[in-house]
Amino acid sequence: MDLKSKIRSIPDFPEKGVIFRDITTLLKEPEALQQAVDQLQHKLKELEYDVILGPESRGFLFGMPIAYNQKKAFIPVRKKGKLPAKTICKEYALEYGTATIEIHEDALKKGQKVVIIDDLLATGGTAKAIAEMVEEAGAEVVAFDFLIELKDLKGREVLKNYVVESVLQY
Amino acid sequence: MDLKSKIRSIPDFPEKGVIFRDITTLLKEPEALQQAVDQLQHKLKELEYDVILGPESRGFLFGMPIAYNQKKAFIPVRKKGKLPAKTICKEYALEYGTATIEIHEDALKKGQKVVIIDDLLATGGTAKAIAEMVEEAGAEVVAFDFLIELKDLKGREVLKNYVVESVLQY
Repeated sequence: MDLKSKIRSIPDFPEKGVIFRDITTLLKEPEALQQAVDQLQHKLKELEYDVILGPESRGFLFGMPIAYNQKKAFIPVRKKGKLPAKTICKEYALEYGTATIEIHEDALKKGQKVVIIDDLLATGGTAKAIAEMVEEAGAEVVAFDFLIELKDLKGREVLKNYVVESVLQY
Repeated sequence: MDLKSKIRSIPDFPEKGVIFRDITTLLKEPEALQQAVDQLQHKLKELEYDVILGPESRGFLFGMPIAYNQKKAFIPVRKKGKLPAKTICKEYALEYGTATIEIHEDALKKGQKVVIIDDLLATGGTAKAIAEMVEEAGAEVVAFDFLIELKDLKGREVLKNYVVESVLQY
């Protein structure tokens, strides 16, 4: 199945000039959902890792089924203020202003090998912040694995020190 | 495995007097993650359904692995403004003010049978709003399936017209 044919492209969302790649049309077809998870998972088949990190909230969609299938831990990366216990956090620059992401302080153990799964690689800003947070926790980023890569935004250059996999490129 | 022993209880979060049941400690243990998904899934084994709905964002965590395992569609229920195409939405009352949830207008087909999966049943306000939204779209709520039910908050009474399953009760 051509997965791209299941993704809906919506011009000028969330702002003018941006084409939004909508995965909800893929998720509502069971075979496309299966194939998207399987292809993301296939990219990791040669890698050794302990933990999958998925950023809120679309990273949860693909990170969790792969954690289940591969018998790995799953750690949700959340926006500031959502996690109830002590956190480590990372502030990073957006086009205007900053954003902060968090994981629990006790989420990662030193030396753990981490794969970061998300639906979309755009500018790579959030992804790089997650990698730095993982490394500050003493763990190691083994790979990034994205369903969609927006090549024009050159996120791969921002992540040039890491293994970066993507299933679909636009 | 006693799954409750893997859930961390945090007093006075998000506000004084509330005990927060933190599932991140469960998700970081692969066997506990497996068992939580398996037990949620087991509750559905006699039911016929086409689609799993999961509310943003912790509903994504358990809804997606079950959608994958059972070869079902997954529809994310999102907070207002996140979905890029035309939506149907439902406003509902909170303790102070209101909240609005949305799904895409073309997410559900008339007559589809829907299971709603989330991590937590508290007062049932969000759950009931989701059910009403599903019914307005012409689809049918077959069951709710929660990992955790906070019995004192009597969400089950709010959902008394529906099948309500939960894995762990507090």
